[in-house]
Amino acid sequence: MTLMTCNGERLWNSLMDMAKVGATANGGNCRLALSAEDKAGRERFMHWCRDAGMSVAFDAIGNLFAHRPGADPSLPPVVMGSHLDTQPKGGRFDGIYGVLSALEVVRCLNEHGIESQRPLEIAVWTNEEGARFTPAMFGSAVFTGSLALATALAARDADGISVAQALEAIGHVGEQPFQRPFDAYFEAHIEQGPVLEAAGLPVGVVTGGQAICWLDVQVTGQSAHAGTTPMPLRKDALFGVAEMALELEAVAGEFAPKGLVTLGQLAIAKSSRNTIAGQVDFTVDLRHHQDADIARMEHQVRERFAAVAARRGLQLAIERHWLSPATPFDASCVAAVREAVEALGYPYQPIVSGAGHDAILLARHCPTTMVFIPCEGGLSHNEAENITPEDARMGCNVLLGAVAKRLLR
Amino acid sequence: MTLMTCNGERLWNSLMDMAKVGATANGGNCRLALSAEDKAGRERFMHWCRDAGMSVAFDAIGNLFAHRPGADPSLPPVVMGSHLDTQPKGGRFDGIYGVLSALEVVRCLNEHGIESQRPLEIAVWTNEEGARFTPAMFGSAVFTGSLALATALAARDADGISVAQALEAIGHVGEQPFQRPFDAYFEAHIEQGPVLEAAGLPVGVVTGGQAICWLDVQVTGQSAHAGTTPMPLRKDALFGVAEMALELEAVAGEFAPKGLVTLGQLAIAKSSRNTIAGQVDFTVDLRHHQDADIARMEHQVRERFAAVAARRGLQLAIERHWLSPATPFDASCVAAVREAVEALGYPYQPIVSGAGHDAILLARHCPTTMVFIPCEGGLSHNEAENITPEDARMGCNVLLGAVAKRLLR
Repeated sequence: MTLMTCNGERLWNSLMDMAKVGATANGGNCRLALSAEDKAGRERFMHWCRDAGMSVAFDAIGNLFAHRPGADPSLPPVVMGSHLDTQPKGGRFDGIYGVLSALEVVRCLNEHGIESQRPLEIAVWTNEEGARFTPAMFGSAVFTGSLALATALAARDADGISVAQALEAIGHVGEQPFQRPFDAYFEAHIEQGPVLEAAGLPVGVVTGGQAICWLDVQVTGQSAHAGTTPMPLRKDALFGVAEMALELEAVAGEFAPKGLVTLGQLAIAKSSRNTIAGQVDFTVDLRHHQDADIARMEHQVRERFAAVAARRGLQLAIERHWLSPATPFDASCVAAVREAVEALGYPYQPIVSGAGHDAILLARHCPTTMVFIPCEGGLSHNEAENITPEDARMGCNVLLGAVAKRLLR
Repeated sequence: MTLMTCNGERLWNSLMDMAKVGATANGGNCRLALSAEDKAGRERFMHWCRDAGMSVAFDAIGNLFAHRPGADPSLPPVVMGSHLDTQPKGGRFDGIYGVLSALEVVRCLNEHGIESQRPLEIAVWTNEEGARFTPAMFGSAVFTGSLALATALAARDADGISVAQALEAIGHVGEQPFQRPFDAYFEAHIEQGPVLEAAGLPVGVVTGGQAICWLDVQVTGQSAHAGTTPMPLRKDALFGVAEMALELEAVAGEFAPKGLVTLGQLAIAKSSRNTIAGQVDFTVDLRHHQDADIARMEHQVRERFAAVAARRGLQLAIERHWLSPATPFDASCVAAVREAVEALGYPYQPIVSGAGHDAILLARHCPTTMVFIPCEGGLSHNEAENITPEDARMGCNVLLGAVAKRLLR
């Protein structure tokens, strides 16, 4: 039996056509959620969907669902999707690749005259990026029930325009029910990291999302004059924080390679060039594939920081700002992707998603997984974001194989 | 022979009377340079000077000189002094103690009927603090020729008021020539550091001002996503800076106890909690008593930082922002202070000034030295700044002894 494969040129042309909507001078895209550009991008996509024989409907938060009927309309659909909105200086592929590779899957099934018992849908989730309205991913959050509709509708952008107003302006509102059953959800996406490129692999089989623990740390010493205070009489909070930062890095070493640690923000209170730092606030971002390990990492960080503070006579306060548990993807969906890759004979590796995605929220609603393709230099949220047509094609073939397997089982 | 000593109660009463001018709710003082409060403080002082038989004159930058005639008006005066302006939430003693202990010296000489060949003066330097107008210490800088008068007059405060306008408003302008010869300059001051208090000593014999070297450091790595970038593929500028900070601390250890190091300001470019720091800028403040050692410290810092950057694959740029050489005070003036302390039988230690003072600028103009007294907890530039009446009295006795020795030689 010959494997069904997608039309890589058609997929690439669609990606390049979509990139004309909200194109930026530096080769990126600006289609902020629910803006005129976002509307234009969605409508270009809707036009293509209708050409492919799909109907289009919305829900009350503007999530867009393109529907390919199945023989048995009572069966929950297999759903593919991602998002079309971008960062203000975003790239051409983050989210868009998932939506347009899903469209290519439908076009391919159509070409091959393949019908299914179950319906097949493409979801375009509202405001995945969170650049214009917070929180990010509120379309999938409202759909899956983790965020109240009223809360999302009340969010306002920097100009004071509410989500409700923006939705009304673009008119992409409908009555599709939230939390309606999905048979499964598949999302193709650029990796937004350097792992696949570094390994020279065209595809990552995504096994889940990482656990994330965010800590807020405050270290207090004694602010004093840089010229008049002998070193032994100082309680320099900054040098204490420097030592804590290296302890944090050591924690990553103990949990290598799955443990990740980042000190992303740091502020010295009332800082001046010739004043000893009296108080330093900083953030810690811990990530790991397993919940048990993220807990162990947090415990180690707390113990190591406390030891530094005690040794240096500094006060230490650590608050857990946020803890997001690990999200293992559905074993049968992950297996479907792996089997599709293997059938195609592509080299691949399992990978855990480091970034947030709509799929992470969908995973609490239905069997879910993702397919990753490499992006140049791991770069994303950047106008220079780039992928190769060949990787785009191969990733789409994997999505096609996995979805066809699920749809036609 | 009985030692001449000052009237500690009279000195303390004058300090407390001055503290009523521009008193703040929290027990401090606010007499910003050339403000109405500064004018009121100066005029209270001028009134006391005239009561003590002194005449008062100004120069073109508002420096105030109270003059006690000598038998030979052609001889350059011995000068004492400091400043009466304060920080916005300043204390009652920083600067003020030097001016009012000088006044107490004059009152004491008057009481004892002591006349001299040389004139004796008290200088009140304009804008030592630099809180309203920058640069700090511009009164003594213009007097000693290290800053052009026009530059100082053109400086503006946050409301756009120029020094020229502020001077005209308070009227404290005159024709005393800049750089006229002084026989010597003596400045009493609170230590603004914790050394004397920690050692339980009432007096510090100040041997000079430290050398200061300010560096601007920029460390560049690669900004990237905290969730998608494996630790071995990161170029985290912040962890590099943490290691540099501990190397900096180690340099202080090598140059102990005279070497001081401070990392006072640090900024992560475009920082966010879940972004690996791509660029970090920070400042380094190095201090040492000797010019040769400050140069060695800077060299070590550069070598150690470069080694960290090389090991971590980070880019490093270090610029020297400012280098202020060490200011050794005049040996004969320092000896006069030490002999005065020893004659009084007070315990003392030699000390180097860590903060900037008018005396540091005067030292390039004439034989100069300072007398330090302890301040509570080393605290200064703070409404809670405090000294004891007993330390005030003892420090004034030392100033009296040293100045009398110089004046009557």
